[in-house]
Amino acid sequence: MSDSTVLDLSEKKTSRRRFLRDGGIAALVAGVATACKPDPKVPLAAAAQAPPGQTGGTMGAHDTAAGASAMSSADTMDAMHEKGIKSFPAKTAGLGNQLLPPTLDKGVKVFELTAKKIQWETEPGHMVEAWAYNDQVPGPQIRVKEGDRVRVVLHNHLPESTAIHFHGLELPNDMDGVPYITQPPVKPGQSYTYEFTVPNAGTNMYHSHHNSTKQVGLGLLGAFIVEPKETTAYDHADVDEVLVLNDGAHGYTFNGKSFPATQPIVAKLGQKVRIRFMNEGMMIHPMHLHGMHMTVIAKDGWLVPAPWKCDTLNVAPGERYDVIVNCNNPGTWAFHCHILPHAESERGMFGMVTALVVQK
Amino acid sequence: MSDSTVLDLSEKKTSRRRFLRDGGIAALVAGVATACKPDPKVPLAAAAQAPPGQTGGTMGAHDTAAGASAMSSADTMDAMHEKGIKSFPAKTAGLGNQLLPPTLDKGVKVFELTAKKIQWETEPGHMVEAWAYNDQVPGPQIRVKEGDRVRVVLHNHLPESTAIHFHGLELPNDMDGVPYITQPPVKPGQSYTYEFTVPNAGTNMYHSHHNSTKQVGLGLLGAFIVEPKETTAYDHADVDEVLVLNDGAHGYTFNGKSFPATQPIVAKLGQKVRIRFMNEGMMIHPMHLHGMHMTVIAKDGWLVPAPWKCDTLNVAPGERYDVIVNCNNPGTWAFHCHILPHAESERGMFGMVTALVVQK
Amino acid sequence: MSDSTVLDLSEKKTSRRRFLRDGGIAALVAGVATACKPDPKVPLAAAAQAPPGQTGGTMGAHDTAAGASAMSSADTMDAMHEKGIKSFPAKTAGLGNQLLPPTLDKGVKVFELTAKKIQWETEPGHMVEAWAYNDQVPGPQIRVKEGDRVRVVLHNHLPESTAIHFHGLELPNDMDGVPYITQPPVKPGQSYTYEFTVPNAGTNMYHSHHNSTKQVGLGLLGAFIVEPKETTAYDHADVDEVLVLNDGAHGYTFNGKSFPATQPIVAKLGQKVRIRFMNEGMMIHPMHLHGMHMTVIAKDGWLVPAPWKCDTLNVAPGERYDVIVNCNNPGTWAFHCHILPHAESERGMFGMVTALVVQK
Repeated sequence: MSDSTVLDLSEKKTSRRRFLRDGGIAALVAGVATACKPDPKVPLAAAAQAPPGQTGGTMGAHDTAAGASAMSSADTMDAMHEKGIKSFPAKTAGLGNQLLPPTLDKGVKVFELTAKKIQWETEPGHMVEAWAYNDQVPGPQIRVKEGDRVRVVLHNHLPESTAIHFHGLELPNDMDGVPYITQPPVKPGQSYTYEFTVPNAGTNMYHSHHNSTKQVGLGLLGAFIVEPKETTAYDHADVDEVLVLNDGAHGYTFNGKSFPATQPIVAKLGQKVRIRFMNEGMMIHPMHLHGMHMTVIAKDGWLVPAPWKCDTLNVAPGERYDVIVNCNNPGTWAFHCHILPHAESERGMFGMVTALVVQK
Repeated sequence: MSDSTVLDLSEKKTSRRRFLRDGGIAALVAGVATACKPDPKVPLAAAAQAPPGQTGGTMGAHDTAAGASAMSSADTMDAMHEKGIKSFPAKTAGLGNQLLPPTLDKGVKVFELTAKKIQWETEPGHMVEAWAYNDQVPGPQIRVKEGDRVRVVLHNHLPESTAIHFHGLELPNDMDGVPYITQPPVKPGQSYTYEFTVPNAGTNMYHSHHNSTKQVGLGLLGAFIVEPKETTAYDHADVDEVLVLNDGAHGYTFNGKSFPATQPIVAKLGQKVRIRFMNEGMMIHPMHLHGMHMTVIAKDGWLVPAPWKCDTLNVAPGERYDVIVNCNNPGTWAFHCHILPHAESERGMFGMVTALVVQK
Repeated sequence: MSDSTVLDLSEKKTSRRRFLRDGGIAALVAGVATACKPDPKVPLAAAAQAPPGQTGGTMGAHDTAAGASAMSSADTMDAMHEKGIKSFPAKTAGLGNQLLPPTLDKGVKVFELTAKKIQWETEPGHMVEAWAYNDQVPGPQIRVKEGDRVRVVLHNHLPESTAIHFHGLELPNDMDGVPYITQPPVKPGQSYTYEFTVPNAGTNMYHSHHNSTKQVGLGLLGAFIVEPKETTAYDHADVDEVLVLNDGAHGYTFNGKSFPATQPIVAKLGQKVRIRFMNEGMMIHPMHLHGMHMTVIAKDGWLVPAPWKCDTLNVAPGERYDVIVNCNNPGTWAFHCHILPHAESERGMFGMVTALVVQK
């Protein structure tokens, strides 16, 4: 059944060698690079170096005359696709969702958030106007424990009024952050202080609740993670990642960046990865993981009655899902929104694409 | 860490006082107004009158020079936002989803539905053409018991043929309401009689199944609630509300009205509220409740195997979900579609926004 | 309460007789036609022949003067609706999702897939360009058992490079089908061989993962069903159908065809039907079945912890759901996407509409 010939085997080796040469992704698989410091110069991955024909697919010869004539335009397209993937993860200025360490004031964990207009690089060379907390999109990650006393001080350096809603937290009404319903708007130049005891655990969010279509769309959003008082095995996952989905003025983004500037999730073989999806956009995003399934353990911060498995998880605006991936399959796995026009064009992958890298 | 000064505290009091003055919402919290008869003249809510700084947030001073220059345009925007919220719940002509008492004919519960073209006010001053049952959008609520014998007589005063599909009821085929498959179309001027024994309990719908994109989009739809023979605690909720989501020719609506003309759901502290979501539109609507979570008990009228919790419930066209809210957190809670452009613009909240008011 | 008169009863008989005359759907109900060989000449269905007034609805007289004046335009519209339904299931050239028998090579099940550009008829007379596997849309159905050794040989006769991703299968990384991440692209004229041991059971898919918005949108997709080693009652359903939802360049389709050229699902009263939904499009499609509920047993090929019931199942791009329908209600039941503009226009039903026919 094989189409293999001496000719196509040699061709295959060539193309495989070219395809793997100094690839950033291949380097990640080798286990010497991390999400933060990819090094494209390291030796290639073990899987990619397996003997041809054993684990890899087999490329056959050209078997139609039509093939040759279509090659040049196909090559042009492929070169664009290759270039994007080879540059992943591409460097851009700024990183969102950075953990914000609180200061302590008599036992109260204090977080300062300054909202202002900035320039934000979503992919190499693509600058957009963002309205951001502490100069990052998503805003800094707030991470506290159930029962903590928390103070969030908002400084409004925007040209509009604003306010913060703690989406998912069951706070006293006057901490709910909805101008004219639970508080006055925070005017340009003003600051406003929220203070509360964290009532419920889980994967939650904070974002503007004033002129929100524009303000959230421009970046006034972040993760608010509450660790439970009574932990479960889920709370001891080896890797714990937040993945904020967005589709507003900045295009299709994961944690404020578009492919190839998205950050891969990196784990070792055998580790358990917890991913906390949050949709801050206006559209659904069915997230598809290659190679391994996801086990859904929580919805909107609440543990589900019985975990369930999937490889494509539909996340609607405002929803959060926590999943566990048991990393038992080594390699670099595409991980993307399965609304294909959110992830790939004729010029290659873009937007809502990243990878889960399982290192041997 | 506080930005408070003598200046800003006085500012805060002023703005809080102005913000709370004769607010319709605040009146609701006080527990003297109901969903049907809001009275904007009653004393303000207890929560809103709490001593400054104890339960409410703290407004800081202007802390940037830029602030002052941006104030006038921010104030203009805020005034529009405030005006909308202060007018909630705004009065409009017509109320949909009104319970339709049956007449009895030898043990058969008889409901008469007349379909005709009307003018419908979705928000103050905004009149749209509607195709309506009994002059209301949604059509009148039909509420019966499992096992009841029911007759529905449709009178077609529309310029087109029509028919009624009882969405979710497992009826004999010739009662299914699909022209040319299960019955002839009901021509303009004709009437048509459906009669059946109600086979299954739950939250269901009735709507046109002829030229339905237009006819349902214009309002030919309603709730068909079937109480079970064997009741559960869910069937004895303190408050039981239907919330029909729509996004057709009438804009983004809850029960046929757009904010600020939507009706709040009102409960007392400690009560259990059952909300029956129904999506009669063309888009998903992830419904987000502030302040408390929702426990999903039924999907499409069928009890789920294990209730699950969320604060954002994605409801797709044709779906119904029943949820229970345990009203343990007093206040006025925003309750809206989390596709933000369905709920807020630069001019303020609109469309798919209402409130769950928990009165002390 | 009845509007019946001698006049309208005779009218009703006439219209019912006309409505049922030589209808393809009615023939299906009679149990003598199948999905593959509908015969419009067979006697009408039992249900449709029931005595008027006993099981069918009752048509009343014209009860408004306005009715008569609106009749002619209503009749014109109704005629278009009737014509579409009466022609269901309409014949078109080509049938997708046909079971592909493997050849055997030393215990390996070998499937050959040739990707090329074809013309495809989605509904009578409507030809579109398709990029297809083995000249059909969806591509041929691959059906294997958990643990089988499988070889898939892809021949690329397209003007672009391509590759196959086995969506849902947890394969070794180099079989994952993502150009430049797990393999080189398969150039025009080349062939490529995938070979693997099938690791997990369930309802999965295969499709292009190169320039996929275009390539999948044009038809490079198919079902990859894996029967489990340890079967359950679900695996012995009386009828087992794949329903691929799509909304790309070919319009709104089920298994590559638009109504009235979609194929009905046909079962006998008392049988259990398993439907395997797969969304290969860019939009959600909440699938609504009339007359009977669906019990969801699997998500993305994985059995759910507890089956749950619905009549409207929201399927997002990339997702699969397996449901069981207990066919206890005889008749022809509309079965369609409940985003109404995907299913009906002023000219009648179109696109994502089919029927589940339960024969007595």
